Amino acid sequence: MNVGLIGLGKMGLNLGKNLIDNKHEVVAFDLNSKAVEEMQMYGAKGVTSIEDLVQSLEMPRVLWVMVPHAVVDSVISELMPLLNKDDIVIEAGNSHYKESIRRYNQLKEVGVNFMDVGTSGGMEGARNGACYMIGGDLEAWSMVEPVFKDTAVENGYFYAGQAGSGHFLKMVHNGIEYGMMAAIGEGFEVLEKSEFDYDYEKVARVWNNGSVIRSWLMELTEHAFSKDAKLDEIKGIMHSSGEGKWTVETALDLQMATPVIAMSLLMRYRSLESDTFTGKVVAALRNEFGGHEVEKSKGNK
Amino acid sequence: MNVGLIGLGKMGLNLGKNLIDNKHEVVAFDLNSKAVEEMQMYGAKGVTSIEDLVQSLEMPRVLWVMVPHAVVDSVISELMPLLNKDDIVIEAGNSHYKESIRRYNQLKEVGVNFMDVGTSGGMEGARNGACYMIGGDLEAWSMVEPVFKDTAVENGYFYAGQAGSGHFLKMVHNGIEYGMMAAIGEGFEVLEKSEFDYDYEKVARVWNNGSVIRSWLMELTEHAFSKDAKLDEIKGIMHSSGEGKWTVETALDLQMATPVIAMSLLMRYRSLESDTFTGKVVAALRNEFGGHEVEKSKGNK
Amino acid sequence: MNVGLIGLGKMGLNLGKNLIDNKHEVVAFDLNSKAVEEMQMYGAKGVTSIEDLVQSLEMPRVLWVMVPHAVVDSVISELMPLLNKDDIVIEAGNSHYKESIRRYNQLKEVGVNFMDVGTSGGMEGARNGACYMIGGDLEAWSMVEPVFKDTAVENGYFYAGQAGSGHFLKMVHNGIEYGMMAAIGEGFEVLEKSEFDYDYEKVARVWNNGSVIRSWLMELTEHAFSKDAKLDEIKGIMHSSGEGKWTVETALDLQMATPVIAMSLLMRYRSLESDTFTGKVVAALRNEFGGHEVEKSKGNK
Amino acid sequence: MNVGLIGLGKMGLNLGKNLIDNKHEVVAFDLNSKAVEEMQMYGAKGVTSIEDLVQSLEMPRVLWVMVPHAVVDSVISELMPLLNKDDIVIEAGNSHYKESIRRYNQLKEVGVNFMDVGTSGGMEGARNGACYMIGGDLEAWSMVEPVFKDTAVENGYFYAGQAGSGHFLKMVHNGIEYGMMAAIGEGFEVLEKSEFDYDYEKVARVWNNGSVIRSWLMELTEHAFSKDAKLDEIKGIMHSSGEGKWTVETALDLQMATPVIAMSLLMRYRSLESDTFTGKVVAALRNEFGGHEVEKSKGNK
Repeated sequence: MNVGLIGLGKMGLNLGKNLIDNKHEVVAFDLNSKAVEEMQMYGAKGVTSIEDLVQSLEMPRVLWVMVPHAVVDSVISELMPLLNKDDIVIEAGNSHYKESIRRYNQLKEVGVNFMDVGTSGGMEGARNGACYMIGGDLEAWSMVEPVFKDTAVENGYFYAGQAGSGHFLKMVHNGIEYGMMAAIGEGFEVLEKSEFDYDYEKVARVWNNGSVIRSWLMELTEHAFSKDAKLDEIKGIMHSSGEGKWTVETALDLQMATPVIAMSLLMRYRSLESDTFTGKVVAALRNEFGGHEVEKSKGNK
Repeated sequence: MNVGLIGLGKMGLNLGKNLIDNKHEVVAFDLNSKAVEEMQMYGAKGVTSIEDLVQSLEMPRVLWVMVPHAVVDSVISELMPLLNKDDIVIEAGNSHYKESIRRYNQLKEVGVNFMDVGTSGGMEGARNGACYMIGGDLEAWSMVEPVFKDTAVENGYFYAGQAGSGHFLKMVHNGIEYGMMAAIGEGFEVLEKSEFDYDYEKVARVWNNGSVIRSWLMELTEHAFSKDAKLDEIKGIMHSSGEGKWTVETALDLQMATPVIAMSLLMRYRSLESDTFTGKVVAALRNEFGGHEVEKSKGNK
Repeated sequence: MNVGLIGLGKMGLNLGKNLIDNKHEVVAFDLNSKAVEEMQMYGAKGVTSIEDLVQSLEMPRVLWVMVPHAVVDSVISELMPLLNKDDIVIEAGNSHYKESIRRYNQLKEVGVNFMDVGTSGGMEGARNGACYMIGGDLEAWSMVEPVFKDTAVENGYFYAGQAGSGHFLKMVHNGIEYGMMAAIGEGFEVLEKSEFDYDYEKVARVWNNGSVIRSWLMELTEHAFSKDAKLDEIKGIMHSSGEGKWTVETALDLQMATPVIAMSLLMRYRSLESDTFTGKVVAALRNEFGGHEVEKSKGNK
Repeated sequence: MNVGLIGLGKMGLNLGKNLIDNKHEVVAFDLNSKAVEEMQMYGAKGVTSIEDLVQSLEMPRVLWVMVPHAVVDSVISELMPLLNKDDIVIEAGNSHYKESIRRYNQLKEVGVNFMDVGTSGGMEGARNGACYMIGGDLEAWSMVEPVFKDTAVENGYFYAGQAGSGHFLKMVHNGIEYGMMAAIGEGFEVLEKSEFDYDYEKVARVWNNGSVIRSWLMELTEHAFSKDAKLDEIKGIMHSSGEGKWTVETALDLQMATPVIAMSLLMRYRSLESDTFTGKVVAALRNEFGGHEVEKSKGNK
């Protein structure tokens, strides 16, 4: 299949190679010409503008957009006047499902198909077999299924139905991921604080072989400990990129309780701080009523 | 009434003065002779040993024990051989209710009464009007009620019934206190992080006048901000002395969910750490699957 | 002062009477003519349309809008063409602070002042002395301060500054309220599940006299137990009206951890359900790996 | 190797067959003679008393105890007088690590070795390849390693060191398991409450193929949904058997925050209730200050 690939970052490059390995023809564009070059050397046709890219594709065109979610709208705006009825835009980044529904409707008005695709499996997955969660119209889906089938691991793609359902599924997937990662982290922290002196790599290995909690995340844990036995080199600052927050916000809108996912998110935020105002207030109050001494701050807020 | 007071720390001294103000005769003992002297200057009879103290009291004796919970058992062991049937030991510290039940039974065997008393209101309360939650036998209670009535604020004492029920009530009181304090702290942290620039003393003041959340804790908050407008001088390290933990443990034993009290406790523990192993594991995992950069630790664990 | 009052629900009626008690002249409007009549009998001038209301007021007009937040925008739309430069609209309902900032800007364009006012203290407060948190321009504030001063309890009003800061403060106030209420509830649940048999009204009373957790909410707790000793008549379904959710959402946007307020909100949502899908999944999983029996549902979801 | 197996429940029977498959000689005992018979038919030597069992084994004896944790102590008491120096007792149930340390010391005094073994993988694992976490003395370990190696999956056993370290590891494993299961459950609940209509079996399948959250628990989730598409037949009541609670209690003793594991436990407790006293108190309070209507209970507590 003839695919236009916009966005050759970590994920896009890997996906492009994966497509080519699977005999798809890739026309590739990125603002970063080095990345275009790398893609070209691997067998893609490199172009220097979105306009060129669109003109290079057979109709109905298949455009795979894999750019940071902050620039999705501008890419789509640039694409819109260039596309024809029945062309298909695949948006495979981490967008909020409500934005995907909006974009679907926006393109629908000019007859262009929009598919929202959540991608999991990391860079390794993009390269050798990803996991896709896909929303959009069924007719468009039936046209592009081969691209997904070929670049996914076996059974690693799922057409979920109406617009937005792909990114929604990916959002929830990441919410679960937050909770699982926090559970694993907390478990190892209990080990670390305990009276026992465990070899964490070996702990993770045994947990990966026959236990109830065996999982890819535990395999990654094993790998991380194999490189740095006590993670001495790493600070415990847990950044986040949005989907966990969206999951919690969506749950609040649905008036439902997701305490485990919510706490995993809140502890990420807590990890960004070295001290908290909550703590200052509570320490001050303990001093007020009980005469408990407070620890003095050394000038920093 | 004739009262033997053992333990002249912050709380004991204030209570002793309160008793004397209310025309009770206090015989006072502490290992710290300065404290005994201070009590004596206020009108108590100071003694230099528990033996002396016991011998100085009218029978049936009333002994008010106000010592750190780590030494309660040794004080009781020392008292036991010296006491007579129908004497009354009032244990007014922060003991675990199960220990109080054990002590009640231990003294019951030799005919001595034991009352477990939770005391709230801080040092100020001990001095001018405390709040008491009291467990133990009814007959003993009817003998000592005047001492509590006189040293409590109006309606500030409650005989709750069987042994242990006083300290249990105090434990739960402190659990609620943990939750309330955390709620107040979190609220001010939201203000602190917001786009607005509030005067927190004035915020606390308006919340103390007519609002739903007016409370003594909010008054203490107002007072704390009057001394240090942004709490710049205070570190947000939240120590804890046991009752919050006991509340959560008791709830677990009762198979019930106290998420708010539990989280207020866990965040106190979290505040004791500058970095967490949980965080290291999660950061390492994000790096493993997503290539997200980790922040390097500078050698400290 | 001459005040136009729009909205005579539970809060509006009480506030109107409070204004009149304090010698303010009230022109009152509500779609419900009964309410207008009641207000008129108390001394207000009743009108039958917003147009009449605006025409009845001295300039610069002071309009106090106290309507459900769903209709605030339509009331403001209706008011806008009728108002003159320097008129003042006071919006005293529970609006989201971002909406208040939007409305402030909207009215600013036509020279009309907008003040966002959070009101606490319940119906009783509205009637006899409320607690106000107020945002908006300083010049407008200096004109209307008397109205707030007279209808608040002593020290029960606070001009917090720029537009939005009043409703933001009220939002956080309610977040704290959620946390405090949950802490109190959890504490009593521990008592209820314990081996002791407490009289909860008396427990609440002693906690209101001299304890660290004495508070208006504890007084209300005492009152509630005085009417129904074990709350046998009440179902534990905890509805919510928005501010707690907004507090949590705002905290998420600020990337900060408010676990206590968040859990108090999530448990409210949990209370709306008799069974959960989370529970079904976990029960099914325990059955899958451990052969633990599941409890069968009787047909209901 | 010659192994005495005490306890032929779900796990014991499967393990016994696994041992026999791997050419070990099993002498088996259970109070349930049917189970002994079944074991005997599979190739074990069945005995009718612990005394017989001990006498049937070669010295130094290897005794594998796989009984409910409530009866471990009585089995050990019965064994103690029958054993000789250097015999090895393997306790492979779900005991608290502190009890295992106590038992280790108890048997140590009479020269008998004690090994604490946490077993994961469910019944299926016991039958075809389990996962073992093992504590105890190194010399004893070197004698019994073959039994574990043969009945575990590849790399599915780990000698962790000193007494107690095996059961401690299993406890934390289960704590992580609680958190992971809750995260999965919450994720599916968000799907269930959403505007989308997913096929959950297919969702779980795609998440098991290439995604970050692929795991054995997700495979079990897929299997559960394959049998009951919406889990309509299952009530969401989440029982628990101890290790999650122990993990949280241990974390509290270590003064550390495990909010995700803690909340997964608390929500299990919450699921045991149809209504809560916390909820009644909060609903009553909302009614007190805001006049919000409460829902009436229909007589049940």
